[in-house]
Amino acid sequence: MKYLKNMWYVAAWDYEVTHTLMAREILEKPILLYRKTDGQAVAVSDVCRHRYAPLRKGKLLGDVVECPYHGLQFDSSGACVHNPHPHGNGPIPRNAKVRAYPTLEKYGAIWIWMGEREPDESLIPDYHFISDKENYRTISGVFDLENHYEMASDNALDLTHVTFTHAGTLGAGTENVRDEQVVRERVGNTLWCKRFNYGIAAGSDFKRFNPALQSIAVDKQQNVRWDPPGYIVIIIRYVEAGTTDKHLTSIFAGNLLTPISQTRTRFFWSVSRTFGLDSDALDSAMRASAELALMVQDKQMIEDQLTLMRTTDLDSMHPVYIADDATPIAARRLLKQLIAEEESSAEAAMAVDTAGACSAESCRD
Amino acid sequence: MKYLKNMWYVAAWDYEVTHTLMAREILEKPILLYRKTDGQAVAVSDVCRHRYAPLRKGKLLGDVVECPYHGLQFDSSGACVHNPHPHGNGPIPRNAKVRAYPTLEKYGAIWIWMGEREPDESLIPDYHFISDKENYRTISGVFDLENHYEMASDNALDLTHVTFTHAGTLGAGTENVRDEQVVRERVGNTLWCKRFNYGIAAGSDFKRFNPALQSIAVDKQQNVRWDPPGYIVIIIRYVEAGTTDKHLTSIFAGNLLTPISQTRTRFFWSVSRTFGLDSDALDSAMRASAELALMVQDKQMIEDQLTLMRTTDLDSMHPVYIADDATPIAARRLLKQLIAEEESSAEAAMAVDTAGACSAESCRD
Amino acid sequence: MKYLKNMWYVAAWDYEVTHTLMAREILEKPILLYRKTDGQAVAVSDVCRHRYAPLRKGKLLGDVVECPYHGLQFDSSGACVHNPHPHGNGPIPRNAKVRAYPTLEKYGAIWIWMGEREPDESLIPDYHFISDKENYRTISGVFDLENHYEMASDNALDLTHVTFTHAGTLGAGTENVRDEQVVRERVGNTLWCKRFNYGIAAGSDFKRFNPALQSIAVDKQQNVRWDPPGYIVIIIRYVEAGTTDKHLTSIFAGNLLTPISQTRTRFFWSVSRTFGLDSDALDSAMRASAELALMVQDKQMIEDQLTLMRTTDLDSMHPVYIADDATPIAARRLLKQLIAEEESSAEAAMAVDTAGACSAESCRD
Repeated sequence: MKYLKNMWYVAAWDYEVTHTLMAREILEKPILLYRKTDGQAVAVSDVCRHRYAPLRKGKLLGDVVECPYHGLQFDSSGACVHNPHPHGNGPIPRNAKVRAYPTLEKYGAIWIWMGEREPDESLIPDYHFISDKENYRTISGVFDLENHYEMASDNALDLTHVTFTHAGTLGAGTENVRDEQVVRERVGNTLWCKRFNYGIAAGSDFKRFNPALQSIAVDKQQNVRWDPPGYIVIIIRYVEAGTTDKHLTSIFAGNLLTPISQTRTRFFWSVSRTFGLDSDALDSAMRASAELALMVQDKQMIEDQLTLMRTTDLDSMHPVYIADDATPIAARRLLKQLIAEEESSAEAAMAVDTAGACSAESCRD
Repeated sequence: MKYLKNMWYVAAWDYEVTHTLMAREILEKPILLYRKTDGQAVAVSDVCRHRYAPLRKGKLLGDVVECPYHGLQFDSSGACVHNPHPHGNGPIPRNAKVRAYPTLEKYGAIWIWMGEREPDESLIPDYHFISDKENYRTISGVFDLENHYEMASDNALDLTHVTFTHAGTLGAGTENVRDEQVVRERVGNTLWCKRFNYGIAAGSDFKRFNPALQSIAVDKQQNVRWDPPGYIVIIIRYVEAGTTDKHLTSIFAGNLLTPISQTRTRFFWSVSRTFGLDSDALDSAMRASAELALMVQDKQMIEDQLTLMRTTDLDSMHPVYIADDATPIAARRLLKQLIAEEESSAEAAMAVDTAGACSAESCRD
Repeated sequence: MKYLKNMWYVAAWDYEVTHTLMAREILEKPILLYRKTDGQAVAVSDVCRHRYAPLRKGKLLGDVVECPYHGLQFDSSGACVHNPHPHGNGPIPRNAKVRAYPTLEKYGAIWIWMGEREPDESLIPDYHFISDKENYRTISGVFDLENHYEMASDNALDLTHVTFTHAGTLGAGTENVRDEQVVRERVGNTLWCKRFNYGIAAGSDFKRFNPALQSIAVDKQQNVRWDPPGYIVIIIRYVEAGTTDKHLTSIFAGNLLTPISQTRTRFFWSVSRTFGLDSDALDSAMRASAELALMVQDKQMIEDQLTLMRTTDLDSMHPVYIADDATPIAARRLLKQLIAEEESSAEAAMAVDTAGACSAESCRD
C-alpha cells in the first residue's frame, strides 16, 4: 500500500462541498468533508474513535459534527468537544480525537494533505485555467474507475491511443500518428510530452467545437504535462496551417487522479477553453465528448487492463515497450523514486523518535 | 472461528418450522429444519454425506428425508435408512450418517444445541413472556445483518444510542441522557444494566403506543439483561411520574442473536407488551416501530461499523471508552472467558480420548 | 491449478465463431476466437503484450487483429505485423507476439490445443453423430456453471441421479433403479458404464419424443462413455421389450466440458437423434427437455455442491461411496494419473532444457 503521502490530493471540486456532511475514501482513509459556516472546507476522519460509526450519517451542528451513534461531538480540528455520557456532559476521553487533514482551496478544487509533514502549497501543480473565469470557460466532472491510478496516468501520457480508442470522435485519422513529431522534456519533477502535426485535418470533435476548422488544414500541438503523483494536463492547440494563431482553438484538459485504493481511482476531469466563453451549447458539446472519451472509452479500457493483468504491478508483467512509452515509463520511475525517498526519510524519522508514542493507525484515521 | 459451542441457539421462531424442509446456516454449519408428523422439530446437517447435495431440496417422506441427488434417505436421528443403489435396496454405507442436533421448543422458539456435551436446558435464558399468551401479547420477526453478533449485542447493551440513532421515534430528548441514573449488576453469568429517569416526557413512539402518556410526566425504567452468548431483553416500564403503576406501560423487547458466521448474524426480535392484549392496531404500530429501529437504523449502523473497522475484533482497534461502555465491555470479557474455558476443557477431553476415532469435520456436518 | 494441458478442448460450437472477434476464457487463459476470410478458425491470446488491452475489443482487418488501445496489429499466428508508432510504421518489438493456439474443426466444434507438445488429433474422442447430418439430427447449446468440471462429469457418469433429480421428466420410476443391470468397462483411457432395463415403462420425456413408447413395455439401454478430461456421451436406446429394434428410439447426448477455471466450467451439450430427422417440433421438445435437465436441475445441483463443500477437492472430503460411484471414481483416478504423468514429463523436459529461455507466463498468454 504505497502512496506518496506528503502530497496534496484533490478531495472534491469546490462546488461539491457545502455546509452538509459528505464522505470520500482517499488513500484508503474514510474522509469526512464539509464547509464550516464561514465557508472554510474541513476534512476529518469519517470514523468515530468511540465505536467506529460513520460520522457522515451524523448531524452538522454549526461547525461541529455529532456522531449518529452515541452523540459524541467533534470540531473541525478533530477534537472531541462534547460527550453527553453520563448525565448529558461527561468527561472527554483523552484519546477521543479524530484525525484532521489540512485542506486548501485552489484552482476550483478542495485539496487535502495526506502526510505527516508540514503541508507545502508549492506542491500543487498549476491548474490556474480552471479557476480563471475571465480568460477561460471550464466544465468539469468526477467519476471512479477500477484500477490503479498509474494505469490512468499512462492512458493520458500516451496520446497515441487517441487515434484508436477514440476513433471517429476525438481521434483523427492514422496520418496523425504517421507525421507526428514528439519532444519529451523533464523540468524538475514535471514531465512534458509535446506532439506536433502540421497541415492535417482536425479531429472530428474539434471540427464540431470550432466549425472554422472543418474545411481547412491545421497545425496541431498537444502538450501533455505530468506532475506527481497523478496530475496531468493536456494542452491542445489548433491553428490554421502555417499561421501563428488564426482560428486558434485552445483547450486545457485536466486529469487529476486521486487514489481511492490500489485498485480504485477517483478521476477528476476538467476541460477549459479560451474561445466561446459565453456558449452553453459548447459546454454541452464538450461535456458529451469528454464523458464519452473518459467515462466510457478510457474507463472501460483501463478497467479491462486490471481484469486481464490481475495485478496493478505493470513492471512485474514485463510488458513490451514501444517508442511512445517513454513518458509513461519516466513518470512511473520518478514516482517510485519519490515514494522510496519518502519512506526512507520516514524510517529515519522513526529511528530518531525513540521516545515518541506509537501513533496507532488502528483507528483508521 | 471461535463460538461458544455447548450452548442453545435460536434456530427459528416456532411458527417458521413446519412439516416441510427448510435450511439455515448456524455457527457456519448448514442445518436442515423440519417438523416430524408428530410435530417434533428436527435439526440435522443439510449436507448429504455421499455427494454433498443440499438435503433441503429433497423430499420429506413421512419423517424421513430423501436426498435430491441419488435418493439416499435419512431419518430424524441422521441415520441413513435407505440406499436405493443398486437394485432399489443397496447396503447402507457404514459412515452414511448426517449429524443430528438436539432441539428444544421453548418460549416460542426452536432452540438448537451446537455442542458435543450433554444439552443443558437450564442454559436457555428466561423469555417466558414470548410464549405466555395469557399475560402478554407478542410480535416477532427475524432478519440478518452483516457483522459479528457481539457488535449487535453492544448496540442493545448501551441504550444511550437510542437518543441519537432513534431520535424522533423510540428516542426522547437529550434530557433523558442528562438525568439518567444507571445501575449495573452481575448475577452469575447474567449482566444487568438498569436505567432510571424521573419526571420526563415519554419517547414519541411510546406516546403513540399509550396515548395516556402523551401529556403527562413519566418515570421511566429500562432494564437491559444480557445472557451469553448473545441474548438480550430490554424491559421498558413507564408509569405516571411519582406513582407505582398508574398508566403502566410495560414492554419486553427480546434481541436473540444467532451467529451465522463471524461476519453475519441472524437477529431474532420480539416485542411483548402487558397492555392492549387484544389490539391488532397496536401490533401494527409496534411492528412498524421495531422494524424501523432494528432492521433499518440499527442494522445500517452495525453494518457500517464492519465496513469502517474492516475487522470484527473490536479490542484490536483500541477504541475509546466512555462510561456507558461498562456493560458491553463486561459482556465481551465474560463471553471470551466462557469460550476459553470451553476450549481448554475440549483440549483436555481430546488429550484423554487418545483411542477415539477422529470425528472428521470434513463433511461440514 | 492443475489441468491436462496437452489436450484438445472445445472452444466453441462451429456456428458460434464467425469473421468477427469473440473471446472466451479457457483453462484460465483469455482466448480470442475468429475465423479468417478463408473460414479457418483462429485462436490467439486475447491480451495485447504491449499494455494488456483486450484484443476482442479491437478491429478485425482482413485476417489481422488491431489492438483497440494503441493500434498494434497481430496476424493469426500471433505475430505482431504492424506497429504504427512512431511515424505510422515503427519497429516491431522483438517480443511483441501473442500466443497462438492450434485449432481444429471437427464434429461440429472448434477444438483448441492448450499444451506445448505437438497436437495429436487422435486425442479427440468420437462425436461423429454431431456432424453426421445424414443419419442424425442434432440440437446443441452451451452454458457456464460454477464448479469444477469433474463435479459435472460425476453427474453424467452416475445416471442413477436421473430418477431423483429429473423425476417426472427424463427420469422414470424408482423401479428403473431396482431392476437395472450395470456393466462397467475400460478400453484404453475410455471408460464405459452400461445400464440395462428390461420390460419397463419409458421415462416421461421419452414417451413425448416417441409416442409409440407410451403404452408399451420397453427394453432400455443407457451407455455412458467417458474420455479424459471431461468428455461424456450418453447413448440411450429404447426398443419394444423383447425385440431387437422395434420402435427404436436412439439418442446420443453429448456433454463436452471445458474448464474455465478451477471453479467454473463451460458446458457444451448436444442431443443427436436417429429418428424424426425432419421434425422441428422434436427439436423444440428435446431442447426444452435438455435445457431444463442441464441448465436448471443439474446446474443448480452441481453449484450447490460447491457452496456446501467449499472446496473442489472431493477426495479431501472423504465422501461416502456407494456402488454406482465406481465409474466416477475410476474417471477421477485416471485423470489424476494423466495429469501427474504430464507434469512429471514436463519437469523432465525442463531439467534437460537448461539452456532454454524461460518462457514467461506473466503475459497471461
